[in-house]
Order: sequence, then C-alpha cells, then structure tokens
Amino acid sequence: MDKLALTKLSYGMYVVCTKNGDNFCGCIANSAMQITSEPATIAVSINHNNYTNQCIKSNREFSLCVLGENVNPLIIGTFGFRSSKDYDKFANTKFFVKDSLPICEDSCAYILCKLIDFVETSTHTIFVGEVFDSEIIKNDTPMTYSYYHNVIKGKSPKNAPTYME
Amino acid sequence: MDKLALTKLSYGMYVVCTKNGDNFCGCIANSAMQITSEPATIAVSINHNNYTNQCIKSNREFSLCVLGENVNPLIIGTFGFRSSKDYDKFANTKFFVKDSLPICEDSCAYILCKLIDFVETSTHTIFVGEVFDSEIIKNDTPMTYSYYHNVIKGKSPKNAPTYME
Repeated sequence: MDKLALTKLSYGMYVVCTKNGDNFCGCIANSAMQITSEPATIAVSINHNNYTNQCIKSNREFSLCVLGENVNPLIIGTFGFRSSKDYDKFANTKFFVKDSLPICEDSCAYILCKLIDFVETSTHTIFVGEVFDSEIIKNDTPMTYSYYHNVIKGKSPKNAPTYME
Repeated sequence: MDKLALTKLSYGMYVVCTKNGDNFCGCIANSAMQITSEPATIAVSINHNNYTNQCIKSNREFSLCVLGENVNPLIIGTFGFRSSKDYDKFANTKFFVKDSLPICEDSCAYILCKLIDFVETSTHTIFVGEVFDSEIIKNDTPMTYSYYHNVIKGKSPKNAPTYME
C-alpha cells in the first residue's frame, strides 16, 4: 500500500465560516464537494479538533468561501494555522456579512448553507449543507490543493484529512 | 443566488468500480475526497440512478481509479455515458483485478475501499470507505474536473451532482 496514491485526489481551497453567538469563526478546508444538483447540497469535512466544527453544529449554518490563485496568502495562514477558539481571525481579515454569516472579501465565490445532516468518522465530521445562496465575487481561477502545494509551496496542518507526517 | 458559483468548487475525475456477483461494473465520479488520515477514509458521491450505487451497497467494497490528463477519452465515454446495467463496460477496457475489484489500467492511481458508512440525500448516496490498499500506477497529472470541461471540452451527464440544464 502506497499512501502517496491518496495525494492524487484533487481538491480546492476553501474557508468555512460560521458564528458562535456574536463571534465569527472559520477554518481552512480542502475537502468539499457538491452532492446533489436540485436542490443543491454540498458536503465538507472538518476535523473534530477545529473549533469551527462545534460551532457549525450549534449554529447549523455555514458559509464556504472559495479561494482563488491570487488570494492573499495571509488568509491561509490566519485561517489554516490558528484556532478561532483563542484568536479573532476576522480582526485582520476583510469580510462582509450576508444572512448573519461572514464571507472573506478576497474569495472568488461564496456558498451559504443550512446544515441538513452530518456523519461522524474517527477524526472528522462530514457536514451536509443545503445551499440557500451563492454568488461569484471576483474573477480569479479557483485555487486547487495541488496548486497550493506545488506553486505556493504550502503545507498541510495536522487537522487536515490529507495530513501526512 | 448565482448557481454558477457552485462551478468554482474543484474536483478530480475518477472511475468508481465494484462488482455484482461475477460481473464488474463502474461509473465516472468527480465528487470524491479524503475524510480522515489515519486510518485513511474517503467519501464518494454517486447518483441513485447509477447501477454502481446499488452494487456498492451489496458488495460493500469498491475501487476508486484516479484518471490522469492523458487518459484515453474512451474511458470517460464508456464509464460516464452508458449504464453497467445493460452494457459490459469492461469488455473493451484494459483492466486488472486486485482483491476481487477491477481497476482500469489507464489510471494514474487506484484506491481500494471497504464500505463503512453511507448517507442518503435526495438524489445521491455519499459512500464512506476505509482504504485497505492504494498504489500509484503511472506518472500522469491527475485530471481535474475543470481540465475536463475547459481543455477536453467534456460534458456532465444527467446523473452528475454538478449537472446543470
């Protein structure tokens, strides 16, 4: 068995956001995909250790911001390598609020979802959300996970499904 | 709401195979992602109308073949636009068998999974499989769904999660 074969799967780069009371929180995700077309639903996988995980369960709504190749790399650093539990990731991030959900301004598109189901695995929750709003914000090529690794030379944090020691 | 925002999600191109008794079956999927790292699990979404869907439920094992940019386009035509119910897709496809599961020879990698859970949505099943074997077969860049659309000018069949009229 060669675990490197798993690196041949393709992904995008996203910030998944929600709120906890009056505070906004969010984290980087790469495992997101559309599940059904009409009504549109998407699934996104988030580690149990990500504070955003428990906040999606209590808020039952989340936004998925699609990052493009020209996104400010600070967004990936802020949302991917710190915890919303002890740090306000939105303090130095340009964002706007739509239907009570935060959206990073520097995304190419956003998708707003209502949580309709979730599945627990050993380390991650697969959230299934029904899309109730989505818009394209700017003209940029969506960043693939492979672009993040090979061009930006980015790393995977420990909580990523694709993390390897 | 602009449904085109959903086209900004990134995917790969895969053939998901399994067997039904002595017969092999399979279909094209683009919605697949790794969920956990250790043990490795992956999720793949397949339309209820795909014959492969019911066969995975009865066989409880499946293979995920990762297609590369240089794959023979006939594979996409065969596995994406016909049904295994009334056509033997493997009759004109080069494949080999590992642990009783068929694998398309012209893939860059394969991942073999044991079904551990599944979630039903209105039109698709999200299968969650634990990886028990995976290998890289050949050196080719994994094809993204965007490459399939923009370079190969491929279309989405009606059963795809990302299908739009």
